[in-house]
Amino acid sequence: FPSKLPNVGTTIFTVMSALATEHKAVNLGQGFPDFECAPELVNAVTAAMQAGHNQYPPMTGVPVLREAVARKIEALHGHAYNPHTEITITAGATQAIITAILAIVHAGDEVIVLDPCYDSYVPNIELAGGKAVRVPLTPGTFRPDFAKISAAITPRTRAIIINSPHNPSATIWTAEEMRQLEDLLAPTDILLISDEVYEHMVFDGAEHQSAARFAGLASRAFIVSSFGKTFHVTGWKVGTVAAPAALTAEFRKVHQFNVFTVNTPVQHGLAAYLQDPTPYLQLPAFYQAKRDLFREGLAGSRFKLLPSTGSYFQCVDISAISDLNEADFCQWLTREVGVAAIPLSAFYGDGFDQRVVRFCFAKKDETLRAALERLRKL
Amino acid sequence: FPSKLPNVGTTIFTVMSALATEHKAVNLGQGFPDFECAPELVNAVTAAMQAGHNQYPPMTGVPVLREAVARKIEALHGHAYNPHTEITITAGATQAIITAILAIVHAGDEVIVLDPCYDSYVPNIELAGGKAVRVPLTPGTFRPDFAKISAAITPRTRAIIINSPHNPSATIWTAEEMRQLEDLLAPTDILLISDEVYEHMVFDGAEHQSAARFAGLASRAFIVSSFGKTFHVTGWKVGTVAAPAALTAEFRKVHQFNVFTVNTPVQHGLAAYLQDPTPYLQLPAFYQAKRDLFREGLAGSRFKLLPSTGSYFQCVDISAISDLNEADFCQWLTREVGVAAIPLSAFYGDGFDQRVVRFCFAKKDETLRAALERLRKL
Ligand SMILES: CSCCC(=O)C(=O)O
Ligand SMILES: CSCCC(=O)C(=O)O
Repeated sequence: FPSKLPNVGTTIFTVMSALATEHKAVNLGQGFPDFECAPELVNAVTAAMQAGHNQYPPMTGVPVLREAVARKIEALHGHAYNPHTEITITAGATQAIITAILAIVHAGDEVIVLDPCYDSYVPNIELAGGKAVRVPLTPGTFRPDFAKISAAITPRTRAIIINSPHNPSATIWTAEEMRQLEDLLAPTDILLISDEVYEHMVFDGAEHQSAARFAGLASRAFIVSSFGKTFHVTGWKVGTVAAPAALTAEFRKVHQFNVFTVNTPVQHGLAAYLQDPTPYLQLPAFYQAKRDLFREGLAGSRFKLLPSTGSYFQCVDISAISDLNEADFCQWLTREVGVAAIPLSAFYGDGFDQRVVRFCFAKKDETLRAALERLRKL
Repeated sequence: FPSKLPNVGTTIFTVMSALATEHKAVNLGQGFPDFECAPELVNAVTAAMQAGHNQYPPMTGVPVLREAVARKIEALHGHAYNPHTEITITAGATQAIITAILAIVHAGDEVIVLDPCYDSYVPNIELAGGKAVRVPLTPGTFRPDFAKISAAITPRTRAIIINSPHNPSATIWTAEEMRQLEDLLAPTDILLISDEVYEHMVFDGAEHQSAARFAGLASRAFIVSSFGKTFHVTGWKVGTVAAPAALTAEFRKVHQFNVFTVNTPVQHGLAAYLQDPTPYLQLPAFYQAKRDLFREGLAGSRFKLLPSTGSYFQCVDISAISDLNEADFCQWLTREVGVAAIPLSAFYGDGFDQRVVRFCFAKKDETLRAALERLRKL
């Protein structure tokens, strides 16, 4: 039978993690922490299991968790979502994004994505019968180019997907850019999917500009976040979607027939743990220290450091080190140097190669030091 | 914006559970146990969290769990799946089914479903751009009608979905019926989705006839199962798909962009707990005792008991009790009598009403007795 996704192979993250394991490389490729989550969080999930929270939760998510999420968004961004009609708990951010896409994209609809982008967006759009329209971010700076975005809009444009803090470039959208997007979309019915999974990783005093802060965006947006990223439990697979009630109603129609519900004890554990904002309020300082350790370690090297303002990624220009293309360089680096990285070309539809690779610094300091020791030899 | 699923409301299970809560009714509607899972299983998940299994597992599932599943299928059904290329761990059976459908159904493809059927199948097919072709099971007996199924096959038929033990009718397919399906499909390329989530709930010495037992079916089948159903943890949301390598490869392409992975500590906990087959081998006797308690309790009543050979459901004919249609009867029963049930009409595309409602007996004996006390007054 014919493939629905003929051009899709195994994701680059899986490929590079497997290669890292095979070559005993320090894995700075796939984005996940190699340190533990808070023991209180484990205890909270255990307590929920022991209290008997092991059967189907409400399809939309456990009420205490939805309420905690709504409170958090209001405290941080000043936008009050109704936890019962506007917040839904998902099986991670990836499931949130495909569900939003399946809920809004009709056959033949176009969805604008900004290259480089996370590798699930485009297959998600295609599975919904839609067409992905790839608009590049400005090469070098990764800033949104509103003239290009505007030119890509057609009567078939159903939605645009943005992502800030941005994977892989580690840039964040400014308030001014968010306002420009708001202005651009104002005369249209175009919906917004705002992937904000790295919302709590912003550095040097920068502020995360959630779409929730901009009325003209919030009114048309599915805002996606991830507890896995925020609480160092990428394997727990719980995320959230905040969206106006009318959008949420359509989202939930698909959600109930995609996964129906999300792990009950983890939801209860997260709800308990979310009562104290300290853990996520400390994240910027926590990750900035790791970023700085990593950047300082590479300071004297021939890797050219790009800015890293948000996310847990650091991009570097490799052109002073190697003539290999990004993908081959990452293979070589993993096999020969013993450090895994991800080529930025993997995030572009056309494989655009600007000689930049991505390292993940969500690692123990000792892991980062071990990687640096190897990288500094180059 | 236009709805992708204009005819879809909230699932009947959510509606009836909410009504049951509101009216303090005994909830025999939505299918889930009201008793606890084994403490060993909770302990195994806790141990996995404490051992640090909290980051992304492999996209396909934790290897020890895939291996345990392959061993279990081989022991029970004599078919050896390769755990690395033919078994995938999913975020529950619902996510397994939509993923299989998204992976194989192209725009305009037809998929045969047998009414009454689980309410996610048809929206799943529609979200993939396909067309559901509903073929009724024989009214009264719920046996498959192969003449009707055969007549529904067209050159556009991509797949057929079957479900045994069957929700809602509590019938199971015989080996002879499975062979008839095998013969019917033999000259075709039609794929099979076999929803076997109630595989371990078969009564009176009957045997579950997995599609894995029939070479001509296994070679074209996605076989779906659910740990939630088997281990009394419907809220944990972990299922499996077994399928030949070529089908699994396409399945995983979609899976990686739907949920990517499934809760890591739960997978490890299940792998540990699966080492001992006793828990699932005891399930038939465990649930048969509950079925018998419930049937004996209704024996002298005006509810006419239909056979219950598999699943954790008991269907009853209400025509000697009420003139209401099934849906109104279930509303009335919940509000006025204090017992929630599910109307079979909710499982039919055309709302076919045969005056039969479904009770779930996956409940503590005391819950069943409380329900019986109310039901026997009718
Ligand atoms: C879902 S695996 C990839 C993790 C991630 O977000 C990344 O490395 O970019
Ligand atoms: C996913 S909620 C419904 C549970 C169930 O399978 C049923 O009651 O039929």
